[in-house]
Amino acid sequence: MTDPRMQALDYVRRNRDRFLEELKDFLRIPSVSTDPAHRPDVEQAARWVAERLRAAGVDPVEILPTDGHPVVYGEARSPHPEAPTVLIYGHYDVQPPDPLDLWTSGPFEPRVQGENLYARGASDMKGQMMATIAAFEAVARSGPLPAHVKFLIEGEEEIGSPHLPAFLQAHRDRLACTVSLNPDSGMIAPDTPTITYGLRGLAYFELRVYGPSHDLHSGLYGGVVHNPAQALCELIAGMHDAEGRVTLPGFYDRVRPLTEEERAELARLPVDERFYLEQTGAPALWGEAGYTPVERIGARPTLEVNGLLSGFTGPGAKTVLPAEARAKISMRLVPDQDPEEVYQQLLRYLEERAPKTVRWEVIRMAGVRAVLTDRNHPAVQALRRALETVWGRPPVFKREGGTVPIVTQLKEMLGVESVLTGFGLPDDNLHAPNEKLHLPTWSRGLEALVHFFYNYGVT
Amino acid sequence: MTDPRMQALDYVRRNRDRFLEELKDFLRIPSVSTDPAHRPDVEQAARWVAERLRAAGVDPVEILPTDGHPVVYGEARSPHPEAPTVLIYGHYDVQPPDPLDLWTSGPFEPRVQGENLYARGASDMKGQMMATIAAFEAVARSGPLPAHVKFLIEGEEEIGSPHLPAFLQAHRDRLACTVSLNPDSGMIAPDTPTITYGLRGLAYFELRVYGPSHDLHSGLYGGVVHNPAQALCELIAGMHDAEGRVTLPGFYDRVRPLTEEERAELARLPVDERFYLEQTGAPALWGEAGYTPVERIGARPTLEVNGLLSGFTGPGAKTVLPAEARAKISMRLVPDQDPEEVYQQLLRYLEERAPKTVRWEVIRMAGVRAVLTDRNHPAVQALRRALETVWGRPPVFKREGGTVPIVTQLKEMLGVESVLTGFGLPDDNLHAPNEKLHLPTWSRGLEALVHFFYNYGVT
Repeated sequence: MTDPRMQALDYVRRNRDRFLEELKDFLRIPSVSTDPAHRPDVEQAARWVAERLRAAGVDPVEILPTDGHPVVYGEARSPHPEAPTVLIYGHYDVQPPDPLDLWTSGPFEPRVQGENLYARGASDMKGQMMATIAAFEAVARSGPLPAHVKFLIEGEEEIGSPHLPAFLQAHRDRLACTVSLNPDSGMIAPDTPTITYGLRGLAYFELRVYGPSHDLHSGLYGGVVHNPAQALCELIAGMHDAEGRVTLPGFYDRVRPLTEEERAELARLPVDERFYLEQTGAPALWGEAGYTPVERIGARPTLEVNGLLSGFTGPGAKTVLPAEARAKISMRLVPDQDPEEVYQQLLRYLEERAPKTVRWEVIRMAGVRAVLTDRNHPAVQALRRALETVWGRPPVFKREGGTVPIVTQLKEMLGVESVLTGFGLPDDNLHAPNEKLHLPTWSRGLEALVHFFYNYGVT
Repeated sequence: MTDPRMQALDYVRRNRDRFLEELKDFLRIPSVSTDPAHRPDVEQAARWVAERLRAAGVDPVEILPTDGHPVVYGEARSPHPEAPTVLIYGHYDVQPPDPLDLWTSGPFEPRVQGENLYARGASDMKGQMMATIAAFEAVARSGPLPAHVKFLIEGEEEIGSPHLPAFLQAHRDRLACTVSLNPDSGMIAPDTPTITYGLRGLAYFELRVYGPSHDLHSGLYGGVVHNPAQALCELIAGMHDAEGRVTLPGFYDRVRPLTEEERAELARLPVDERFYLEQTGAPALWGEAGYTPVERIGARPTLEVNGLLSGFTGPGAKTVLPAEARAKISMRLVPDQDPEEVYQQLLRYLEERAPKTVRWEVIRMAGVRAVLTDRNHPAVQALRRALETVWGRPPVFKREGGTVPIVTQLKEMLGVESVLTGFGLPDDNLHAPNEKLHLPTWSRGLEALVHFFYNYGVT
């Protein structure tokens, strides 16, 4: 057996259980980037990735500081100077595990049950990281590398990658590459390999509404001041009209209308209303009138309330008239919306609508533009063939509702296209309790990534 | 010096510092009735009150169980069989201290600064309880008691006294009395002694709105399901119209219109718009159109949001589409509204307005009718003279925005009128951080209560 591709495929199959155990070790590190209390864990996760890359044959590997959590960077050169350079992007941080009481086992105590591995980060994206490192290791141990490979593994994706733009700027020379492979996207179904060619952007805010200067007794003062929790609700309620459209002034001005061709293509995706009802468990669907669910998620902007907090929220009753109320509010953006403009639109909405009986402020927390990638790029085609080989059917191309800031930044700052894939599934409970990874799909993903290196590189 | 009244006044003056130290001991017990974790503290507070009553000469004193926190009950008989019987009501429980970070010192570490004593419960109502016990002790040590006295000190006032009606029913014979003295009300200003003759009722609910069956990634699902935090805000926003009126169907049907005479009387109270702006620190006043602030608080019903909770509320950004959202919502009621009818009105509002894209439920937490007491009762007149003697000016009569369930229950179940007074001030931060008691006013209150016993009893 001298064909390196066959050797590498054999390698991933033989070592699959070891890779799974290593993934569990990775998942035991609670690398919650948004929580300052988890800073040591985030640093430990960076060291774990660096050591794992070294063990896979990446050399050199460095942990490079940023003004936030560090970036793990590594390089492995092919003996073929003319080979393309693949920049593998990933993130070693995870979302917070709350609400903790809804997990059936500890979020950082990985547990296999049936075909699934349960843990925070199992799907998003430590499982995808482990698959990529494993595939690289298999290729590196099975013959000459078909491509130069660079790894860029950040620790702040789940908080909007605030320090990555400065990092890309500072290291742009050594990040030079032909394409970026980004396995932080997902699949539509276990039998439907998927390549994502569009991602929504994100603008994230905290809106704080202030009423009285201190909490008041609702009996002694209820009826003379505007309750800030009520005022916040009034402002949020006004952010959508009866058709489910966002009312911020100018919000849709830059939104690219969907062409008939795009609508026809999106309609071919196997995700109908029933699919979304099953995935969400909601009593009925909801959204912007005039668009199908898959259009609303992939190609239309949205505004969501991510959190509400005011007054007394413990068990029992407290008759307080709260001094303030807070909401986390974020918008998913599509081409060609601009997060800075959306911020201005939010301010204008509040200036026009907020009553003089309360004060308010807006705190900006993240801003990323949406992106569409080139579906004809040779690396995209290499991945398409790899997925078809493993699954026995061609992948579908989809526009994704989520946001991957690095894709926008690599395109805007380095002019680099990203190939977006990944082996997570819609019911993986991303960002939610009982996150899981479907292991048979993950195992196929390992093999598909091996094929990708050989399809795209020099053999 | 043989006049018992003069002896008793001298007694409270000489022992005032001791009474203050005893009050501090009482305030160190964190008797938060709504929090199950504080159950032992609530029980300790009951024992403290029982021992303090015994030390004052009350005999017998019993700690009587209820299905919730116990009632401390005691009796002291006058040698004059024909003397009236005063049932002194109080509560030894306090509101939760949250938000803790806004206290400048520990809520259960009483601290005197300037003329004020700071602690949770200092004003509401451990300070008032201590004043009443101290005045009783002074009278009891200075000669024959001018009245029979009974003490009924409960531990669940701050959670709406859920078990008091059953207690009153079970013990109605021994609670028989001529009048109830209730020092859980307050004053308008340090120089304005106050008797309260009206109290608002209360209906308290938790509204829960459910959307998807689990938290979702706002990128992957934002735009296809109705965000329950948004739906909750929409429902709350609809609960008031543009004129500040509550929109629950039928909410005002039973509200007694204010007579011109009542409006004229309320207009005489020294509480104008500036007073409420200063007390609340709000940027502007707000409320039901067509009524003055004092009318809105004393004589009109209101609906307040007491708490909001949904999704991610920690530091940082989490792009969650939450599975549920909760609000604590309460209504202050006036004669002749009925809490049970208000519950039905809330349900009808939700049935009419809640969209089919979410599910909801309402949890009932408290229900108390409003009450107006007889201003010509001999005990009210005895208190009026007592306050005038100490302050050198007659008290004002006011309608209060707060709720004291026992007043309604004593009237409805035992046919007993209550005399409502107390020595707290509007800026005491009741139910809020940095609750305080104005000590010079409290000292005057001790003396006024001594006068009350002699004015009302047999001398």
